Amino acid sequence: MGEKVHVTFEPVQRAVECEKGEILIDVARRVGIHINASCGGSGVCGKCRIQIEHGRVAGEKSEKISSSDFDKGVRLACSSTVTENVTVRIPLSSSMQKGGLSDGVIGRHRALEHHFDIEELRREGIFFPPVEKVALELPPTSLTDNMADAGRIVQGLKNQYDEHGLIISLAVLRKIRKALREKDFNVTVTLARPVHPSGKTHVVNIQSGNWVNRIFGIAVDIGTTTVWGQLIDLHTGRILANAGDYNGQISYGEDVISRIIYAEKPKGAELMQELVVTTINKIIARLLVEADIDRDEIDSITIAANTTMTHLFLSLEPHNIRRAPYVPVSTFFPPIRATDLGLQLSSHAIALLYPAISSYVGGDIVAGVMGSGMYRTNKLTLYIDIGTNAEIVIGSREWLVCAACSAGPAFEGGGITFGMRAADGAITDFGIDPGTFEPMNITIGRKPPVGICGSGLLIIVAALFEKGIIDQRGRFRRDVATPRIREGKSGFEYVLVWQDEAGIDSDIAINEVDISNFIRAKAAIYAGVKTLIEEVGLSVSDLEQIILAGAFGSYIDLDSAMTVGLLPEFDPGRVLYVGNGSLMGARMSELSNHIRQDVVEVVQRMTSFELSEVANFKEQYVASLFLPHTDISLFPKIGMRLNNGESVDKS
Amino acid sequence: MGEKVHVTFEPVQRAVECEKGEILIDVARRVGIHINASCGGSGVCGKCRIQIEHGRVAGEKSEKISSSDFDKGVRLACSSTVTENVTVRIPLSSSMQKGGLSDGVIGRHRALEHHFDIEELRREGIFFPPVEKVALELPPTSLTDNMADAGRIVQGLKNQYDEHGLIISLAVLRKIRKALREKDFNVTVTLARPVHPSGKTHVVNIQSGNWVNRIFGIAVDIGTTTVWGQLIDLHTGRILANAGDYNGQISYGEDVISRIIYAEKPKGAELMQELVVTTINKIIARLLVEADIDRDEIDSITIAANTTMTHLFLSLEPHNIRRAPYVPVSTFFPPIRATDLGLQLSSHAIALLYPAISSYVGGDIVAGVMGSGMYRTNKLTLYIDIGTNAEIVIGSREWLVCAACSAGPAFEGGGITFGMRAADGAITDFGIDPGTFEPMNITIGRKPPVGICGSGLLIIVAALFEKGIIDQRGRFRRDVATPRIREGKSGFEYVLVWQDEAGIDSDIAINEVDISNFIRAKAAIYAGVKTLIEEVGLSVSDLEQIILAGAFGSYIDLDSAMTVGLLPEFDPGRVLYVGNGSLMGARMSELSNHIRQDVVEVVQRMTSFELSEVANFKEQYVASLFLPHTDISLFPKIGMRLNNGESVDKS
Repeated sequence: MGEKVHVTFEPVQRAVECEKGEILIDVARRVGIHINASCGGSGVCGKCRIQIEHGRVAGEKSEKISSSDFDKGVRLACSSTVTENVTVRIPLSSSMQKGGLSDGVIGRHRALEHHFDIEELRREGIFFPPVEKVALELPPTSLTDNMADAGRIVQGLKNQYDEHGLIISLAVLRKIRKALREKDFNVTVTLARPVHPSGKTHVVNIQSGNWVNRIFGIAVDIGTTTVWGQLIDLHTGRILANAGDYNGQISYGEDVISRIIYAEKPKGAELMQELVVTTINKIIARLLVEADIDRDEIDSITIAANTTMTHLFLSLEPHNIRRAPYVPVSTFFPPIRATDLGLQLSSHAIALLYPAISSYVGGDIVAGVMGSGMYRTNKLTLYIDIGTNAEIVIGSREWLVCAACSAGPAFEGGGITFGMRAADGAITDFGIDPGTFEPMNITIGRKPPVGICGSGLLIIVAALFEKGIIDQRGRFRRDVATPRIREGKSGFEYVLVWQDEAGIDSDIAINEVDISNFIRAKAAIYAGVKTLIEEVGLSVSDLEQIILAGAFGSYIDLDSAMTVGLLPEFDPGRVLYVGNGSLMGARMSELSNHIRQDVVEVVQRMTSFELSEVANFKEQYVASLFLPHTDISLFPKIGMRLNNGESVDKS
Repeated sequence: MGEKVHVTFEPVQRAVECEKGEILIDVARRVGIHINASCGGSGVCGKCRIQIEHGRVAGEKSEKISSSDFDKGVRLACSSTVTENVTVRIPLSSSMQKGGLSDGVIGRHRALEHHFDIEELRREGIFFPPVEKVALELPPTSLTDNMADAGRIVQGLKNQYDEHGLIISLAVLRKIRKALREKDFNVTVTLARPVHPSGKTHVVNIQSGNWVNRIFGIAVDIGTTTVWGQLIDLHTGRILANAGDYNGQISYGEDVISRIIYAEKPKGAELMQELVVTTINKIIARLLVEADIDRDEIDSITIAANTTMTHLFLSLEPHNIRRAPYVPVSTFFPPIRATDLGLQLSSHAIALLYPAISSYVGGDIVAGVMGSGMYRTNKLTLYIDIGTNAEIVIGSREWLVCAACSAGPAFEGGGITFGMRAADGAITDFGIDPGTFEPMNITIGRKPPVGICGSGLLIIVAALFEKGIIDQRGRFRRDVATPRIREGKSGFEYVLVWQDEAGIDSDIAINEVDISNFIRAKAAIYAGVKTLIEEVGLSVSDLEQIILAGAFGSYIDLDSAMTVGLLPEFDPGRVLYVGNGSLMGARMSELSNHIRQDVVEVVQRMTSFELSEVANFKEQYVASLFLPHTDISLFPKIGMRLNNGESVDKS
């Protein structure tokens, strides 16, 4: 954490703590103070002029500011870095607050980033990697003690470590004679623990001398778009390297359905398998270089992926995943020698794949549930991973239910006129001046705006709704006096960025069709959550914790998500963000064999619902096609603000 | 069994039951009636003339018999086939019995051939092959039942066969989708049972339709000289094909030591492995052709071999097997995918290797102990496999002890002037006329004699001793009036075959050095047995059963073996011969998973003795360097005959 300083905003008399090095406009945005900004914070529109009253900020002079203004302390908020305590006045033209800020928009809440790690496992007493190295000092052979070399190892493990019922692999038997005699019967053996507690421990490697501190594992998440890997020190639990790359399959289709279609072609499945293995091998190679570890030192690899990715990786026929009644080949996968799958690892490394629940609730979700400890918690938890499909798991240590809902691609920028993936120039944060209706656009990378990404879309819709610019159905008020609201090709729209400030050759706007697509997406998710929880006889108000996973989850503005009815109204302090839940779960499996052991039982008791087969779901979905919901009693805070005549539109 | 007829021998008035088709000289030999025969029964010496008195025998006229003699019923015993009841007179020149036959040589006793087989297992309730096929009729998929294909199989196995905790291999997962849908969800799955009862059953294959009756296994014995294989129908337990071939390693040394020395050379180990794998693959190919079975239909293979052969087959370093303190790499071997060893079988076939006890008591012996059921018997049993090394196991279900003794190569024809392996022309049976000292030589294949094989050597020494021609030290009586006893290059010798009746260009004789080598060999074995049994506080008279294994065991004349003191005096009715005990054990493992499961525990409680390290052994060995033994009280019957002034020499 950096050093803390304070920024005092005038005339609203708000003192905000921030870190040295933060950009002024981000500090304002974070606490919901509006400053006009059209260019995404790239410094070209010059609209975010502010006046420094006390103290100083860092940053070069913009050409939008005259030298005399600069000397008087005028700056652009998007180009000023906080370095000390400072007082900043927002000019009236930039802040048309009438009677101060609405309560509803004070502050921004992101989910608390939660890094499940070795400390968590240590506290729970389950830090227990699936592979372990132990050192043995064995007596030399003699005529009165001429037990076989392998027997000597077994005896040593029994005497020194109370290990029983061991199986020594052929590869180890082939090395054992030399290894024992190279350093006077001092060796290190690698033990691979069984997935089932009833199983046997395997001796999978032997080295002469003492190497107990060097034991490593790899965790991999095979995403449809991106494959991620982590190299983990299994002795300390630390992550030594991270690497990610596009899934090599991506040129054969962006989503799982198109991959399946390709795999059904002659030689298609082989190609799909090869491509993803090549990607993983590239990642492994990068991890090894980054961490400076030998390939042979990797003793274990855990892989999590959605059901289709898992099928393609293992060369299982994915055909029926895309056809009713959506039957995968398998949801459980046996331990497999990594080299048998084409992975470039030592011959003794075993690959474990996370089991899946169904065709559309895959091992990536199971990994999140296992790795986050959700399956061990007493709190009634909603785990949600939002992408094209949103996967939902609800439950606790007692029971777990799950479902996949087709949210459509809105959250990934699909079906939105100016939608795009989260990349440079994507509007990711937004505010609106309720007096002038001027926007405050913040883009990724502070580049001139080129489109709207999922997190931006959520905030834009929430802000338009908050300020009464769109109604509960997502329709624009026709009576707002601003050229930014106009009738376009797809009905009414709000112009976020005029062409001259945009990074593309047109205005950037959001229209009613876009908003309608967004509402359908959020409705599918909310209806999924509500249907699922009601199927087990509870209601959304019973939830005690929400865990967000997936790339989208890290950017999600919780207040906006609740304002639009994407998530139930909830204390933001009880929302955790776990990032890539799939990778996290794979890593946690590398750190705790308990998780590997528990997963079989967890998956078996996890009840999966096909939402399309649940009578109630359609009704719930239709009821959710409002902002935030037709049943406003589900969103009491928003309901109160609607009733109190705040800026939320009452139509 | 053929039809029974009787042969009555005159003048001894002995009626003998035999089968139609038996050769007359064999019938006589079997009951100890002497008929001179020099040419091994090949029909060239003409010495075995007999007179048919009643009835007829089949066989062409020999040129050694004149037409008039032939018409009078004169025949050669070695060229006459019994076809009906017949009375045969042995002329005085051929039979110089004085006062009838000695009691000591009435009849010949071979060990009872015992074929351990499926009926035995059925009686004991342990016919339970390690792989099994079961048919499943599964419900088709639907939206209300869209369980994964693999889950459907697991569910079916649970519901229809009460199978639990199954693991489905990757290879099966890859086939499962098509297999299920090809015949309306009717499939056959192959279940591989765990070696340990606590382990899991694996589903290793899936086929559409019903194939439960087609399930096969292979048993292999890797002998140092010869490799044997059997193809077994695991549904019926029947042996469908047999095949054997020289171990391809043989051109790199005849014994295990020379193979180890070769394996220590650069690339030597790889070559040894390749050669034996090639041999096994040839045998597998022949078995498949003979039984008309597809390679993919073989679901299991069990291999037994001595410790060196096992090491070479698995590419384990055999170096220390031949160096004190004789430490093998391992005595236990994990289950290994057959294809990983280079065996040409289906990818799902698992190879199981019999565990060994030590460097010189190998998996071949363990296989015999397991397969013969010795480890389950209440009878105190001596199991003995005689070759260059004799491996001895003593015990019962309660305890087992074992040792290897270096008998030297005498029983395989080594170190004997005219010694040879059991092949055509080898003298394998022998008698001596106590009056004329003329021999009765019977050869393998009834070819003119070319040498003496192990079983012949035993009978020759026993007969020379019985008739008082050699003394207890194996020295020839100097006063016997026959040109057949003479002083040769290596001391006194007895001429078995004169050159003109031999298949080689010299006389064939046995000399005192040969006899001395034989005595050392038999002494090592007897001393091993006696030492071992006394180490556990018992004596040889406590033995209740003897099991003979190995090629030599099938030819061994029990009376001769007891006369010379190779085996303890024992009721021949309690001596079983199991043939190739190693192959038999491998087959029994294919028929009963109980044996596979029990072997781990049996091997662990089997106490191995290094005889060279047991103080008592040397003493026992020296005491055994007599015929039958210095302590004649150990051989009361022989002792009685010695005392009764029978033909056994008393010097």
